[in-house]
Amino acid sequence: MSKTFEKLQPYLDKSMALQTARNLFEWDDQTTAPFEAADNTSIVIGILSDEYMKSLINDDVRHLLKKLQEKKEQADLTDTERAIVKELGKTYEQLESIPPEEYRAFNELISISSRTWAKAKKDNRYEEFAPYLEKVIDYKKKFASYRVKGDKKPYEVLLGDYDECFMIRELDIFFEQIKKEIIPLLKEVAKKAETIDKSYNYLNYDINKQREFCRYLSGYVGFDFNRGVIAESAHPFTMQLHNHDVRITNRYIENNLESAMFSIIHESGHALYEMNIADSITQTLVGGGASMGMHESQSRLYENVLGRSRDFWEPIYEKLTATYPENLSNISLDHFIKGINKAAPSLIRTEADELTYCLHILIRYEIEKAIFAEEVKVAELPKLWNQKYQEYIGITPSSDEEGILQDTHWSWGEFGYFPSYAVGTAIASQLYACMLDKMPLESYLKESNLTPIREYLEDNIHKYGAVKNTGEILKDVCGEDFRADYYIQYLKDKYTKLYDL
Amino acid sequence: MSKTFEKLQPYLDKSMALQTARNLFEWDDQTTAPFEAADNTSIVIGILSDEYMKSLINDDVRHLLKKLQEKKEQADLTDTERAIVKELGKTYEQLESIPPEEYRAFNELISISSRTWAKAKKDNRYEEFAPYLEKVIDYKKKFASYRVKGDKKPYEVLLGDYDECFMIRELDIFFEQIKKEIIPLLKEVAKKAETIDKSYNYLNYDINKQREFCRYLSGYVGFDFNRGVIAESAHPFTMQLHNHDVRITNRYIENNLESAMFSIIHESGHALYEMNIADSITQTLVGGGASMGMHESQSRLYENVLGRSRDFWEPIYEKLTATYPENLSNISLDHFIKGINKAAPSLIRTEADELTYCLHILIRYEIEKAIFAEEVKVAELPKLWNQKYQEYIGITPSSDEEGILQDTHWSWGEFGYFPSYAVGTAIASQLYACMLDKMPLESYLKESNLTPIREYLEDNIHKYGAVKNTGEILKDVCGEDFRADYYIQYLKDKYTKLYDL
Repeated sequence: MSKTFEKLQPYLDKSMALQTARNLFEWDDQTTAPFEAADNTSIVIGILSDEYMKSLINDDVRHLLKKLQEKKEQADLTDTERAIVKELGKTYEQLESIPPEEYRAFNELISISSRTWAKAKKDNRYEEFAPYLEKVIDYKKKFASYRVKGDKKPYEVLLGDYDECFMIRELDIFFEQIKKEIIPLLKEVAKKAETIDKSYNYLNYDINKQREFCRYLSGYVGFDFNRGVIAESAHPFTMQLHNHDVRITNRYIENNLESAMFSIIHESGHALYEMNIADSITQTLVGGGASMGMHESQSRLYENVLGRSRDFWEPIYEKLTATYPENLSNISLDHFIKGINKAAPSLIRTEADELTYCLHILIRYEIEKAIFAEEVKVAELPKLWNQKYQEYIGITPSSDEEGILQDTHWSWGEFGYFPSYAVGTAIASQLYACMLDKMPLESYLKESNLTPIREYLEDNIHKYGAVKNTGEILKDVCGEDFRADYYIQYLKDKYTKLYDL
Repeated sequence: MSKTFEKLQPYLDKSMALQTARNLFEWDDQTTAPFEAADNTSIVIGILSDEYMKSLINDDVRHLLKKLQEKKEQADLTDTERAIVKELGKTYEQLESIPPEEYRAFNELISISSRTWAKAKKDNRYEEFAPYLEKVIDYKKKFASYRVKGDKKPYEVLLGDYDECFMIRELDIFFEQIKKEIIPLLKEVAKKAETIDKSYNYLNYDINKQREFCRYLSGYVGFDFNRGVIAESAHPFTMQLHNHDVRITNRYIENNLESAMFSIIHESGHALYEMNIADSITQTLVGGGASMGMHESQSRLYENVLGRSRDFWEPIYEKLTATYPENLSNISLDHFIKGINKAAPSLIRTEADELTYCLHILIRYEIEKAIFAEEVKVAELPKLWNQKYQEYIGITPSSDEEGILQDTHWSWGEFGYFPSYAVGTAIASQLYACMLDKMPLESYLKESNLTPIREYLEDNIHKYGAVKNTGEILKDVCGEDFRADYYIQYLKDKYTKLYDL
């Protein structure tokens, strides 16, 4: 091991421990903590966060990092160490560029801003949220301006925080294709949407049975209950302490069979990624997934590409109907498969079907780009939002609550995050296409043999954590760069067949 | 605020945050964490523990503490600050007296020792545990020897870590009374034990209904679900992050109605204490209960003195029979009250009834005293244990598993802890006696009006946290020192009546 890196190790260990503690508090807050705990607990979290910052951002680490970034030292490092140094460099670049007092003021602002958003959404009053959104945007613009280098645009600084491989050029190409191919497809589908019956999905489904079946589904795709747990929370999410402690949550709705089932497959996809990270890099700065997009590709691969296929359900559909004979005994497998793939224009991103989903993201991407290119004012956003929904999806929100106020992200200053969702979904199709060349995927599914699928993903993607970035992984796995056409083709094939277009 | 104390505050805050994180990891480990998480998570906990130690034990704090212990500075402090300084002084006295390398070696030892104990208990092989127990005892003797001052005995150093108010002199008087009065009483009871029928208790009780009824019981005695949660674990316990986040666990046994019900009342007693600690001292070094014994007095007051009384059950017994009509519709309230108070000689402390319990502790106290007075060798302990069980309780363990290996405490080096259980139980009776003088306790119970009871305890005990010690609290509440005769009388009255002696 490099002597310099060895000196860095205790700082990394300390920051890892503090970050793990913060993760546990976050998990606990979402799943367990009593209602009135927040005020006192936030004091604890504040101190742990300060200590976390201090453990990474200090003169010793700054000095070691600079040294480790030199060519001479780089040669002595392993791939993992180099990746850790790169990651640490990014953290420094992000944090050191911002004056501490501005950083603190921004954090105070988003705490109020997110609360104001929640209230504004509830009351359907965009005008109450707007002044805070404006301030948040101003800060993000200012922070981005500190970090802009070369011909990068401010918005790209933010995009880069989520995935360095997808800048405006790549995203423009991607979303143009979506616009060109998916909008017309959705229009066709919309005309025939009601030819698919899905009424069975909204009957009464006992929550305890849902819980049990979802646990089964999670184990079925490979979730290891010795290294993970499932809990419940208002919004499903995945959280890891390390590769031997990966946690997912779910939410159960009595009159919606699908909701919890596909949430659990989705979160299990995220969890498999984290469980399969190599022992040698877990608990390091590169011990999580490669990027938001790469992570989303795994959850979407399981949830949609595999999880909504006929092959996936063929061996287990009987178990589902046996769980709810009163609702499903008359619903054939084909009927069910059509139901879970039904598409129709909709207003709410988180409830969108597979076909409409990318259009929700397209709209957010275009709006974010416009914001950071100074092309639109905060007061005009609802109008722009509604116009785009009408133009791309064919429906207009009747209120801001189901329009521009629906997502929490902007209230936290998370601009540049949304594209990852669509990119990840598209990567899932690209990976699926190249896996089809390498293994009898369909037979595996039909035989309930999901282990080779999980193992392939582990060996080619998961185990590397963030040692490779999204682009490097795609290149190594598929032998080519990111390409959107697999995704477009996947959606076209699926929906043309489903709706007899 | 004192300038010196002000300088101490950031250190105290940091140590509080790290301790809270350790508590959360402990809670999570017992209730949630997946099976294989332990190895990686222990790295995190190790780092947090080191940081915790460093936050308190360092030259800056040492210097400030010394200054704050001076007479001149003491005068500037509030009661709470003085109590915090005293508590911090105790921590220093405990930790600074032990050479760091010995402290580390000891911690490594108890980690192995506790695992060896678990295995030895499972396999019923005391001889495998004995060498570790011997080493643990040697360390505890050595550590105590570093701290012995004046005419204090080594065992008293350990006793003082749990409650400074109960040294050998006090405990000898207390346990002599128990010996004299309770052993003969138990002998009388033993002859008539089987005149009370309790077979109803061992029928089948649906776990979900138990869970629901226990939740009801907890709320009934005052547990505030906005500031606390109930979870499940192998052994019931109480854990707080602060006074607005107090957590208890329970364990449910299908063919034992009583077990979970009295566990939840017991833990709720602990929880009320922690929930009622004043806002001004929560998250400080004196923000927990006054002592182990004082804490136990609250749990035992609720579990036994109140919770096993006829008055307590009169208004709610109908709800219990309605929950389990198939088992309880023929069991009258009087029958039930006899059942939950039934006493008989038994071997296992944690399952002991109210009458036998203090004898289990008496035996442990006498053995611990003998160990630290060099009067018994580790190899001879099982024999001594079995002799005392025969002599005091009238039965002999058929194996070490249900004899000397039953408790985990010694494997962790927790000597001096057991007496707190008995002292706490006795304090419950003393408090009850003085509360009877001050309020119509029995009517409150009969009217399901438990709020004044909780409020009395809050105002007179709970809110002070550890600002007062056990002796000061008793003096202020009851106007006298600790006295065992209330407890003896309580047991005599109860069991004479119950068994028509």
